[in-house]
Amino acid sequence: MTHVAVPLASGIVGLIFVGILVREVLSRDPGNEVMQRISLAIQEGARAFLKREYMYVSVLVVVVAGLIALAPTLSGNPDLPLGWKTSVAFILGAVVSALAGYIGMSIATRANARTTQAAADGGVKGALGVAVSAGAVMGMSVASMALLGLVLVYWLFQVPAIVNGYAMGASLVALFARSGGGLFTKGADMGADLVGKVEAGIPEDDPRNPAVIADNVGDNVGDVAGLGADLLESYVESIIASMALAVALVSGAAISEKLVLLPFNIAAAGIAASILGIIFVKVMGRKNPQAALMGGTYVAAGLTAVASFFIIRTMGTEFTIGSTTYGVLGPFYATLAGIVSGVIVGMVSEYFTSSKYRPVKNIAEASQTGAAITVTAGTAAGMGSTAVPVIALGISVIVAHHFAGMYGIAMAAFGMLATTGMVVAVDSYGPVADNAGGIAEMAGLPPEVRGVTDHLDTVGNTTAAIGKGFAIGSAAFAAIGLLSAYMVSAGITVADMSEPTVMAGLLVGGMLPFLFSSMLFGAVSKVAFKMIDEVRRQFREIPGLLEGKVMPDSATCVDISTRGAIAGMIKPGLMAILVPVAVGLYDPRALAGLLVGAGVTGVVLGIQTANSGGALDNAKKYIEEGHFGGKGSEAHKAAVVGDTVGDPLKDTVGPSINILIKLMSVISLVLAPLFIRG
Amino acid sequence: MTHVAVPLASGIVGLIFVGILVREVLSRDPGNEVMQRISLAIQEGARAFLKREYMYVSVLVVVVAGLIALAPTLSGNPDLPLGWKTSVAFILGAVVSALAGYIGMSIATRANARTTQAAADGGVKGALGVAVSAGAVMGMSVASMALLGLVLVYWLFQVPAIVNGYAMGASLVALFARSGGGLFTKGADMGADLVGKVEAGIPEDDPRNPAVIADNVGDNVGDVAGLGADLLESYVESIIASMALAVALVSGAAISEKLVLLPFNIAAAGIAASILGIIFVKVMGRKNPQAALMGGTYVAAGLTAVASFFIIRTMGTEFTIGSTTYGVLGPFYATLAGIVSGVIVGMVSEYFTSSKYRPVKNIAEASQTGAAITVTAGTAAGMGSTAVPVIALGISVIVAHHFAGMYGIAMAAFGMLATTGMVVAVDSYGPVADNAGGIAEMAGLPPEVRGVTDHLDTVGNTTAAIGKGFAIGSAAFAAIGLLSAYMVSAGITVADMSEPTVMAGLLVGGMLPFLFSSMLFGAVSKVAFKMIDEVRRQFREIPGLLEGKVMPDSATCVDISTRGAIAGMIKPGLMAILVPVAVGLYDPRALAGLLVGAGVTGVVLGIQTANSGGALDNAKKYIEEGHFGGKGSEAHKAAVVGDTVGDPLKDTVGPSINILIKLMSVISLVLAPLFIRG
Repeated sequence: MTHVAVPLASGIVGLIFVGILVREVLSRDPGNEVMQRISLAIQEGARAFLKREYMYVSVLVVVVAGLIALAPTLSGNPDLPLGWKTSVAFILGAVVSALAGYIGMSIATRANARTTQAAADGGVKGALGVAVSAGAVMGMSVASMALLGLVLVYWLFQVPAIVNGYAMGASLVALFARSGGGLFTKGADMGADLVGKVEAGIPEDDPRNPAVIADNVGDNVGDVAGLGADLLESYVESIIASMALAVALVSGAAISEKLVLLPFNIAAAGIAASILGIIFVKVMGRKNPQAALMGGTYVAAGLTAVASFFIIRTMGTEFTIGSTTYGVLGPFYATLAGIVSGVIVGMVSEYFTSSKYRPVKNIAEASQTGAAITVTAGTAAGMGSTAVPVIALGISVIVAHHFAGMYGIAMAAFGMLATTGMVVAVDSYGPVADNAGGIAEMAGLPPEVRGVTDHLDTVGNTTAAIGKGFAIGSAAFAAIGLLSAYMVSAGITVADMSEPTVMAGLLVGGMLPFLFSSMLFGAVSKVAFKMIDEVRRQFREIPGLLEGKVMPDSATCVDISTRGAIAGMIKPGLMAILVPVAVGLYDPRALAGLLVGAGVTGVVLGIQTANSGGALDNAKKYIEEGHFGGKGSEAHKAAVVGDTVGDPLKDTVGPSINILIKLMSVISLVLAPLFIRG
Repeated sequence: MTHVAVPLASGIVGLIFVGILVREVLSRDPGNEVMQRISLAIQEGARAFLKREYMYVSVLVVVVAGLIALAPTLSGNPDLPLGWKTSVAFILGAVVSALAGYIGMSIATRANARTTQAAADGGVKGALGVAVSAGAVMGMSVASMALLGLVLVYWLFQVPAIVNGYAMGASLVALFARSGGGLFTKGADMGADLVGKVEAGIPEDDPRNPAVIADNVGDNVGDVAGLGADLLESYVESIIASMALAVALVSGAAISEKLVLLPFNIAAAGIAASILGIIFVKVMGRKNPQAALMGGTYVAAGLTAVASFFIIRTMGTEFTIGSTTYGVLGPFYATLAGIVSGVIVGMVSEYFTSSKYRPVKNIAEASQTGAAITVTAGTAAGMGSTAVPVIALGISVIVAHHFAGMYGIAMAAFGMLATTGMVVAVDSYGPVADNAGGIAEMAGLPPEVRGVTDHLDTVGNTTAAIGKGFAIGSAAFAAIGLLSAYMVSAGITVADMSEPTVMAGLLVGGMLPFLFSSMLFGAVSKVAFKMIDEVRRQFREIPGLLEGKVMPDSATCVDISTRGAIAGMIKPGLMAILVPVAVGLYDPRALAGLLVGAGVTGVVLGIQTANSGGALDNAKKYIEEGHFGGKGSEAHKAAVVGDTVGDPLKDTVGPSINILIKLMSVISLVLAPLFIRG
């Protein structure tokens, strides 16, 4: 246990910090009765969704855990390195991810009205503090709990093959949190907008719209819980990938052990750095919120980079993989390569999705020619935005490998993720501010309050773009690390692309993200259709609703989103789980091809969908600021269509693809022993 | 020369058949003066575009040919297997492709008014004959000239490394024909529709619309010349890939020689079978056009399959690659696998794009909820449509390889392409019928005539879907064949995906089809914008135009499309040429990764864009038939937006991706000797 004393301590410190933040948030004024009632409705909706989601996931977790535990018996091979220990690790991973999501979301949904009230009382400065603290609860819960769980599993079992189960558990929960959350939020959002804004002509977040509460719930389940589970998964996977590769590839047990412990200790430093970063934001945010959020992110990243230099120099070692010897500082350079490419991916995302730059302005301009050209321009911008990030990732792969071999690639992933606490904090802050704006609108607070929350929301967008870059970039690296670990575990020494099974695997794998996206699109449309019908029905059948005399039946809308999201998750979820198992049993090298194919198109399609959606969203906002005719103009109508097309791209499909490629990789890694041919 | 006597004879017979068809088409009544004037305007427009396109391409051809000729001198390595012979082959490939395109398009643009007149005189039966003959001129020119040129080059030089240059020449012309044609046609189409139909409220193909002639020219340069060049390239490449692989991999020169000659002889049989298929269509078409077109395609494919069985059994041989020996009939089974998967790809395309089936009906239904949901549903349908074709391709790769090794994969590609004459004939028939309808409209002929041409157009859609399936499927196979040939030529024995350079190559390659598409989207929007401005200007400034008293200035619109298409081709074209060269010089294995990555995303994205576009197009037509409110309804407006989004997807981006992956592969193959490291 002494090896992991520092990470253990740091995880506990992280949780104490979470406790302090929770107290701080809950001590704030929750606003007047109307605000409290709205906030409560959002809390209840979010809780109802999580409850049902976790119910379904837990059935799946129990089934899968049982199969893993019985695998040695069922396969007739008692030496198979699966069994109850892997099951325990798997369950723990699932529980940690679910718990972190639950805590983060509970606080986020309690912070929304408090942020609104703070905006009313103290303007931007006061409101920023509440929203950042709420986001930080999610961020620090993710980082601390993930690390503590990992320390526990590692201390209990030591063997990478067993610890891998932990990542698989986290991954399974992440799939459902991300795609379920994405389906919930966009189904509600599209339904609310299409009937409310377009048909009934009432403003966004108007309390008369029955789907507005569901929309606000969606922000939390998608962008808070979903994002948290996503990054928690990448975080865990990059650590276990480096662990698995260090043990399998590096010569000498003592040296492997040292390399295994490096990411644990860097993670510990990352948690400390994230705490400092969050404090920085809260202190500096009183002057300049925008600069504070950016600054905090850079402070955390910079401190982690410096700390990892010293950690690697002190605790690291020269090591040999195959016939190549790498220097002590090799893993440090690999980590740096990861951080740099993560920042590049984020900056490119910002360029392509911010209304300050050409691409978004071009889309706004194109909107004058109608919706078709808007959508085409948005698609083109997203497609064009893939070039630099992918090249940056490609170069980092080469650089990281140059300095530290395959182990370096896993460390590059971890480089992006060490400050997960900070990244998730900044990202989760956005939905809290967004919700606060909704509450201001619904509670009929003065427009200045909405102005403050809108400002907070906009401020978060830039840092959120960087966060998204880290999420996609680290998913790609984590997938590559997991792939290498899988190949080692499955006994594949060479996966030659010109072999027909590998080639077929590549083709089919390359198709999977498209099929997966298609299923999610279908599911989100179904939810939206049902929501539209229900909203129309309420406007039609509830007397006095449109006049504002009666409250709408929000609970039914929440229920529609919940059921639709759960139902919509089943098909893509099963596909993500069963395809790698089936292909692996057919031929483990075909599975290697499949993972690579899925990784390649997944990364590209993930970046494209995220940036197309972001660009279309901000082009609409740019027009709403008064450009090209402003609100109500033909250009605006076209831009609204573009935004609606972009919504499921950026919030349902794009982020879910991340999980797809990671989940398939980690399942392959855990089950690799099953696939080895006698 | 005796070895290739049969293919030589068959190519000459094919050309004689072309001559007969040309005479037949030109002997028909060209219609009244108005019709002749319109037809002439289309001919002139098409000629002007081809002239300018060929001017630019010929500069590029001369430069590249010069570099290839001087490569041994410039690289300081006189033994480099490049030089003037490869240059000559390269130039010949370019000339053959350009010439076939020119002949096909000259006749297609002369057949349009004649088809209209035949429709007026004799209804469907008469018109079908003219349109099919015109399409067959393109189809048989492609097959016969490609084969004759190949026979010539093979007879002159014998060495595969030199013959490869022929494919590269064809590929370069194809890139410009396909993407230039696609830019021309969709720029004009979108411009004509957005101002004409949407703003001015005049019908499609109305003679008052200045962009209508350009739109009709576009059908010819995109769908006739572009498609012909595309399939000509695949045809040539699958033959040279099998040739290169037979020589490089198969043990024993005499045995290799036999395998080299197989595709030549199957091609000869394919030409004969295509002639019979075309005659079948012309004879049976008098009774049931739909059944005749399908029947002719199956007759040609079936005859070729039977003939190739006998050819392979008689002329083939057992052969050994590495340590595996394959049976005499191995290549036959590989060919069959190719044909079957081509048919599957085509049938799935039909299912997803025909208004007879669920997907298109669902999109039409979704249109009732607005344009955003229409576009989303269309995207989802296209994404979902990739699953079965890609799995079919994957299985065929494994099957073809099982029966005949890498050589078998090239033969599978050729299996789809042996009846290129027939496939192109059926595909080119569509635009002729489409043009005939436009002329009927513009010349103010009675609505029955338009009814006949519309019927012809619809009839061609099903067979066109199968043709598209063959184009995409064969491009994938050809690319795999070329990749294997490249790896052999570049001295790469194993391309291990877990190597960092290969991995980086895969990532970057996977991104290229997205970047390429983004460039084409940008270019097509630019052309459309300029077209919109010009059409608006003419409506505004030419007095009496909207009242139908004066003719519009169509020539300026043709000129805008021409300039826009040429300008828009330059960036993506240079990318397709320079990226493989740069990456190959950096590391030939990174280039292998790049080609595979581009192939994987290219195939998937190609299928998705083609089918999304087709489905959106037909959803609009389905509504226009009176469903969900019919023409003028809100659903129809939404569907028109969807169709406009789909247009560049299916006609500019989708088909160009085919060429991108083939061109990069063939350039890599030709230049492989340059990349080998000392």
